[in-house]
Amino acid sequence: MRTPDEFNEWYQDIVEKAGLADKRYPIKGMNVWTGYGWKAMRLIDNYFREEFDGTGHDEVCFPLLIPQNEFQKEADHIKGFGAEVYWVTHAGENKLDIPLLLRPTSETAMYPIFHLWVRSHADLPLKTYQIVNVFRYETKQTRAFIRMREIHFFEAHTCHEDFEDAEAQIKENLDIMARLARRLCLPYVVCKRPDWDKFAGAFYTIGIDSLMPTGRTLQMGSIHQYKDNFSKPYDITYEDENGAHIHVHQTTYGMSERILGALISIHNDERGIILPPDIAPIQIVIVPIISKTEPEAVMARCGELVDVLKKSGYRVHLDLRDLRPGNKFYDWELRGVPLRIELGARDMKANIITLARRDTGERVQIGNDAMLEGISENMKAIQANIFAKAELIMRNSIHNVDDLKKVQPGINVMGWCGGEDCGHSIEQATEMSVLGEPVGVTHSATKCIVCGTSTEKSIYVARTY
Amino acid sequence: MRTPDEFNEWYQDIVEKAGLADKRYPIKGMNVWTGYGWKAMRLIDNYFREEFDGTGHDEVCFPLLIPQNEFQKEADHIKGFGAEVYWVTHAGENKLDIPLLLRPTSETAMYPIFHLWVRSHADLPLKTYQIVNVFRYETKQTRAFIRMREIHFFEAHTCHEDFEDAEAQIKENLDIMARLARRLCLPYVVCKRPDWDKFAGAFYTIGIDSLMPTGRTLQMGSIHQYKDNFSKPYDITYEDENGAHIHVHQTTYGMSERILGALISIHNDERGIILPPDIAPIQIVIVPIISKTEPEAVMARCGELVDVLKKSGYRVHLDLRDLRPGNKFYDWELRGVPLRIELGARDMKANIITLARRDTGERVQIGNDAMLEGISENMKAIQANIFAKAELIMRNSIHNVDDLKKVQPGINVMGWCGGEDCGHSIEQATEMSVLGEPVGVTHSATKCIVCGTSTEKSIYVARTY
Repeated sequence: MRTPDEFNEWYQDIVEKAGLADKRYPIKGMNVWTGYGWKAMRLIDNYFREEFDGTGHDEVCFPLLIPQNEFQKEADHIKGFGAEVYWVTHAGENKLDIPLLLRPTSETAMYPIFHLWVRSHADLPLKTYQIVNVFRYETKQTRAFIRMREIHFFEAHTCHEDFEDAEAQIKENLDIMARLARRLCLPYVVCKRPDWDKFAGAFYTIGIDSLMPTGRTLQMGSIHQYKDNFSKPYDITYEDENGAHIHVHQTTYGMSERILGALISIHNDERGIILPPDIAPIQIVIVPIISKTEPEAVMARCGELVDVLKKSGYRVHLDLRDLRPGNKFYDWELRGVPLRIELGARDMKANIITLARRDTGERVQIGNDAMLEGISENMKAIQANIFAKAELIMRNSIHNVDDLKKVQPGINVMGWCGGEDCGHSIEQATEMSVLGEPVGVTHSATKCIVCGTSTEKSIYVARTY
Repeated sequence: MRTPDEFNEWYQDIVEKAGLADKRYPIKGMNVWTGYGWKAMRLIDNYFREEFDGTGHDEVCFPLLIPQNEFQKEADHIKGFGAEVYWVTHAGENKLDIPLLLRPTSETAMYPIFHLWVRSHADLPLKTYQIVNVFRYETKQTRAFIRMREIHFFEAHTCHEDFEDAEAQIKENLDIMARLARRLCLPYVVCKRPDWDKFAGAFYTIGIDSLMPTGRTLQMGSIHQYKDNFSKPYDITYEDENGAHIHVHQTTYGMSERILGALISIHNDERGIILPPDIAPIQIVIVPIISKTEPEAVMARCGELVDVLKKSGYRVHLDLRDLRPGNKFYDWELRGVPLRIELGARDMKANIITLARRDTGERVQIGNDAMLEGISENMKAIQANIFAKAELIMRNSIHNVDDLKKVQPGINVMGWCGGEDCGHSIEQATEMSVLGEPVGVTHSATKCIVCGTSTEKSIYVARTY
């Protein structure tokens, strides 16, 4: 186990060593997505698309720039984001009449248009999403994928007839998250954030947090119930049967490149990262073991293997570099390729392939006739194993505490009366944050850890990124 | 045939009517991509990816913002783009020390990093591309997909050992364009632009132009040979066998949402647009013809059809709106869906479906057992037919002229001595632009149309967008 400091150093290092991002771009907090990292991110994006297309959302793309006057319509929202926005003040030689800002999130870009799109009952629910980059002038220390100033971002925005229909959307979003997490092998907890930590302008906010090896939680996503907080200033209404204009209720669902940051942080060992098969840009690497005799036969067989595996839908790479096999193993283990096939003259004679699993390091030999079945089974086993391992670690890091002096790294569960003062006292005493009330699980408390008031309500408390 | 004015009005109108973009966003030249248009664009993007991945390019993603000092390293490049860039001068409450600009194109974002990526011979060729939005403060009249201030952009950037290797890349790019054009049903001409019209910083520029119904050409893409014009100011070098540091030779290949603008402009009729099957977000729409008897049976059969067609890989939509079939036909014809299936009780009894082709308006009946074959054949026929039709129109719009007073709408071919003065004279006399010398086709001239000097060189001259 790495200490938090060791982990942080390892993380900063592996991002570049594994070829996920290049941090040398001459603006702080803005990295270059290199081929391998971008491919992984795009595979994650495709699962977002699959889920949101499959639940009737329409993918759209709104402009990056937002006029200052549109941005300023919802007061809390400006308070929340005002200090973080980048301002475009000039174009060519001209000073702009109205300054434009780079979207920190797209409510204020979309909602003036939703005002035009929603006219009647028949236009609802309006379910849209987009995958774009957003910009936030972070003042804290930046960290690849986790705290950036240009952020690869997913955002779903919906409009509904009433509060209940918006609530049903939030349920759908939680189901989507559950399916995504299984695919991405990412355990998480869901909490309703306390009022003082909700999204700027939201009625309430649900945070989706993963637990990092430092014992801190990372917010990977958030789901917001806006009620009519935005539809009022942006005048998004529909006409009901009686001709009255009713303000819609809205929800949003945001996720980002933090998902990739969480994946790398959670799935790794001393040799490097371990990518879940579903998002690995290379799922299988083939390393030829060239002997002095029959090198051509081995190469020909490797070529055949690539074709067969590609046809079966795998992302395969044949490593033909002029390096010793051991060096190649080292490289691909560092970069997290789930399965490696080693193939030499001896394997060919025995009609087998040798398969090495990245997660366990196990090497197994499979007869050629059972190869595809064997690969498919091993892929599934890797996916299941790394998810189960990560889930166990998280479960073991959730501690019930009845004394604020006894909080530990990880997630601390305690009783809370619901009072904001007691909440702040918890945060001050523990130097941690209140993640909020867990959603979908019950941890019955008996009394508030601060004031002792009798309560069944419990909250999660943790250090956060 | 629409007059140019009628065409322009029709175009501005159809973009919104067909649901491709919403032009009501409150910043001039920045539109909202609505679901249907964005899906078409993403399908086009996927063909870009297929081609560039297939030729060994790596997809990357560089930051949007570029520091002023990096931008200013290549003098001609600044001259070309300086007047068009958006400047970020503030973040939050702070004035930035170094102003940042929104990329108008990514040379000056990428090349400081290419300086780090290219060290030796083994790093070459470096072949990368990205699909991002770029920003240009256009002062001319804006037009959806054709002249925008936020532009959905494709850019490939490569580094090579020497000029010849960069030239080979340009050949590969032209082959890629030929394959893309067949897929997208887009005839085009390729010209080496005259020196006064090359890309800011390029050694030479090849323009890829389509011909619009207004008789003007539209530059859909461009390929640039940079030689070492950028590698010198950005110090991108590799070490050769003798330890000498050699500047790389570079190329770029740019395309944009103009491809979609060209598609809509070229493939349409009085009923609306006609989308080539490969980029149609909906390839087949099913319209149930509900009679008073047996409505359930028809609906059940329609549901079955959707499943079968989806399984065969088609993008299918079942139109269940409470509208008369004729209204539905009108809608989907306007939006360019290539094939429509009409299905009623009579068809069911006869074990057939009725298929309507968008390009010809033909309706054919196909037996259920030959349905998939019939659909596949009709799709191919549509693709071939609209491409052939567009090619014929373009071929017939290329005119040889030997008198500057006789130029016509479309592309005019004439002899040119190669002198810049004569080139400008041609442009002044015709109020057209010199597209340049055609690449890959020969139109032997005998003398320069201006000065009469004997020459075999001919050029294309046209009005442009």
